[in-house]
Amino acid sequence: MKVGLFGFGKAGRAVATVLLQSKEAYLCWVIRKSKVLQHRSVPEFLGIEHDEPGLIYSKDEFTPEQLFDKYPVDVIIDFSSAEAILSYGEEAAKRGITIVTAISAYPTETVALLKKLARKTRVLWSPNITIGINFLMMAAKILKTIAPYTDIEIIEEHFKNKKEVSGTAIKISEALSLPETDIKSVRAGGIVGRHEVIFGFPYQTVRLIHESIQREAFGDGVLFAALNLVHKKKGFYTMENLLIPYFNLK
Amino acid sequence: MKVGLFGFGKAGRAVATVLLQSKEAYLCWVIRKSKVLQHRSVPEFLGIEHDEPGLIYSKDEFTPEQLFDKYPVDVIIDFSSAEAILSYGEEAAKRGITIVTAISAYPTETVALLKKLARKTRVLWSPNITIGINFLMMAAKILKTIAPYTDIEIIEEHFKNKKEVSGTAIKISEALSLPETDIKSVRAGGIVGRHEVIFGFPYQTVRLIHESIQREAFGDGVLFAALNLVHKKKGFYTMENLLIPYFNLK
Amino acid sequence: MKVGLFGFGKAGRAVATVLLQSKEAYLCWVIRKSKVLQHRSVPEFLGIEHDEPGLIYSKDEFTPEQLFDKYPVDVIIDFSSAEAILSYGEEAAKRGITIVTAISAYPTETVALLKKLARKTRVLWSPNITIGINFLMMAAKILKTIAPYTDIEIIEEHFKNKKEVSGTAIKISEALSLPETDIKSVRAGGIVGRHEVIFGFPYQTVRLIHESIQREAFGDGVLFAALNLVHKKKGFYTMENLLIPYFNLK
Amino acid sequence: MKVGLFGFGKAGRAVATVLLQSKEAYLCWVIRKSKVLQHRSVPEFLGIEHDEPGLIYSKDEFTPEQLFDKYPVDVIIDFSSAEAILSYGEEAAKRGITIVTAISAYPTETVALLKKLARKTRVLWSPNITIGINFLMMAAKILKTIAPYTDIEIIEEHFKNKKEVSGTAIKISEALSLPETDIKSVRAGGIVGRHEVIFGFPYQTVRLIHESIQREAFGDGVLFAALNLVHKKKGFYTMENLLIPYFNLK
Repeated sequence: MKVGLFGFGKAGRAVATVLLQSKEAYLCWVIRKSKVLQHRSVPEFLGIEHDEPGLIYSKDEFTPEQLFDKYPVDVIIDFSSAEAILSYGEEAAKRGITIVTAISAYPTETVALLKKLARKTRVLWSPNITIGINFLMMAAKILKTIAPYTDIEIIEEHFKNKKEVSGTAIKISEALSLPETDIKSVRAGGIVGRHEVIFGFPYQTVRLIHESIQREAFGDGVLFAALNLVHKKKGFYTMENLLIPYFNLK
Repeated sequence: MKVGLFGFGKAGRAVATVLLQSKEAYLCWVIRKSKVLQHRSVPEFLGIEHDEPGLIYSKDEFTPEQLFDKYPVDVIIDFSSAEAILSYGEEAAKRGITIVTAISAYPTETVALLKKLARKTRVLWSPNITIGINFLMMAAKILKTIAPYTDIEIIEEHFKNKKEVSGTAIKISEALSLPETDIKSVRAGGIVGRHEVIFGFPYQTVRLIHESIQREAFGDGVLFAALNLVHKKKGFYTMENLLIPYFNLK
Repeated sequence: MKVGLFGFGKAGRAVATVLLQSKEAYLCWVIRKSKVLQHRSVPEFLGIEHDEPGLIYSKDEFTPEQLFDKYPVDVIIDFSSAEAILSYGEEAAKRGITIVTAISAYPTETVALLKKLARKTRVLWSPNITIGINFLMMAAKILKTIAPYTDIEIIEEHFKNKKEVSGTAIKISEALSLPETDIKSVRAGGIVGRHEVIFGFPYQTVRLIHESIQREAFGDGVLFAALNLVHKKKGFYTMENLLIPYFNLK
Repeated sequence: MKVGLFGFGKAGRAVATVLLQSKEAYLCWVIRKSKVLQHRSVPEFLGIEHDEPGLIYSKDEFTPEQLFDKYPVDVIIDFSSAEAILSYGEEAAKRGITIVTAISAYPTETVALLKKLARKTRVLWSPNITIGINFLMMAAKILKTIAPYTDIEIIEEHFKNKKEVSGTAIKISEALSLPETDIKSVRAGGIVGRHEVIFGFPYQTVRLIHESIQREAFGDGVLFAALNLVHKKKGFYTMENLLIPYFNLK
């Protein structure tokens, strides 16, 4: 599976690292705004040994058409900005390239564009693309259906300077129809990120806990998404859509 | 739903307490070996207010036929001994009474009997009938399928005098195809029971934790099983069978 | 060490259980308001085997003078009510009987009385007399002094119906000079009681956790207090006073 | 406080980062074996803004005498190798420079040298110099003395590829006189490091937990050690020695 990556910030680099270490994906190129790292080898820059080094290009070197002609890929992973897809989206969809985007928020028009592109190719958009968090959210929803009489509480812990309530915790509270105001936020030192959902039964307690080890634990999720989409039909997907079949026990 | 209970040890009493507090079940009677509490009211003995008190009978007061004639029930819950079903099983099955048994272990012949009875009625056998543990085991199996590359570890904590490895932890290890010898057993003070399954991803950790508050947290599970079976066809069931539909997300 | 116990509610019974199981204390009698259990044997009532059974008396059977004459003790443990000490205090202090009281709150005049009695005997008053909580509070204070730059957060978890913020959590927040409003309160199912103090360092986190297994975990603390006071001078003590010497490492 | 640092591997860089961010210490220079980074500015290399940049020198550029003449310091921090002190030790001690070394293991002769140097200056050696772990170890020892009847269990969790039992966990077990073989070792994914000491009381549980966020959480401890030693007499110290006064409550 040939992969191209838009965006090379902290998250983009983390994803590149996981892709380079995977046997199932081959990272062909990285596109970034700045020209600073232009034409450097991705594995060399990240200190990872690799036989076929993809290079870093700046976004103004090619039109999407030139890029996909010269360096064809099966999957695009987008950790850049909400604007990027406006330039490469149409061309990628036309060629049937799978698009996986983890941009936090898109304007309404861009969401509409994503859905339009999804008529021609597979498009997955998931602002939180980690497997652990998505699994936790789905498992919690199931347990709530099994035991609707339990009390559910959400605790999220993050580093001192995180001002706002965790977006992931808000998503969990929405998934469980709990008031966002009930989330307990702990801010202490350098905690990377910890989410805990507590189910209180009369005589037992179930705790589902997710701990981030590094702020950019997206790599596994991206790889999972890309590998899963390959076998899917055209259409618009979320991480939850991809995980559902795993929950359909027999 | 009219319920009859065999067995009134610690677990039986806990189940009776949950049934008495439920609006969906009505506990008609309790059968026990000893004559000590004969004809006492169950709610009064347990200190729970209740309008229609079921009584405690000793097992030699009636034949199963007399019992079911005089005090008909929809569901039998069995927390007594592996022998009890030998006496009441056939008669209950003939009448289509649902049987929920939580006996730890049955001899092979009795398991065969259970399956024979299941041709005539709904029979559920689950040595560990708590919702939390069964949920945890199923959720863990799913996460292993989603992320087969994770390292999975099981820690169980119990009170000092528990000599053997937790049977529940062994079940979890079997469900996850992990060697039983890998279970980490903590024995300390009066810990009632705690099971933790850890999934180690490269950059994140997922922990599924079940904590027992009282050693007999069976009541919720029994009530869940009884209420769910009502709508099912004849046949042999486990807690897992009843929970599967909740996992079938769409 | 001969012990007399005032109060035989949930907490009193828990303390009696620990005393009966200890080799160092001998529970001579229990005094309670009600006459219901009058003259029953304490170990028999609690289902504990014991050679020298102390009996349950009702408080109107004796004057303190008669009681201490007939059944002399070294230590009085008071889990009854804020009024009890008004009747037995003077007589006990005169005889040099150690007084250990765990009453939640005393009116100002009674606190003054306690201090007056402390001129004649050893008086310990600690509304929260569990070893674990007192240790946790002192250890937390020390860590704050060692690392004043850490962020400290307190989470307390209790059963659903506990309306108010945990008094123990408030004490911990006071000990650490943290605003009471910062305490995160989780209310879920049947959780007996869990207090966690989190110290956030830039690159590490320290968590001090206390979990109650039964709502009345006072026994160990009472026994610890009684055994420790024996070797102390007359005076007024708290649990913290008794624990300090253990912290004075060399 | 002027500081010089020997060693610039992962741990050395982490320590340099904390020193550069501190207002109480000024990092004058770093000495390393290799010439690769020779004469580069430490803050610039680490991406930290700083007014007075110390430089990186290679160890063969100066004799200790030349180094301390040209760039005098109050404290030396040694994260290099067991041999380094053989060259700089005598000269530093002669000048009364405080020495803080975190080398994992020294040959017996070098330990003897450390103690000899300690006759002339303050020497602190602590293979594990994190505040959290040292605090946890001391607090655990205290709780064991308070409640010798508790069951104590140690769980340590680390990344998959850590083969051996955690050295820190072994130290904790030694401090508590527990058999090293009882330590429960969890190996899963990318867990940086987690140590938990569980105290099991009959009706309560105390858990002391240390979580490392980055493998090199030494900086705080080093800074704490250096700042504390300044006011001490000549002599040989460990982290425990420096922490003891904080435990001496009044």
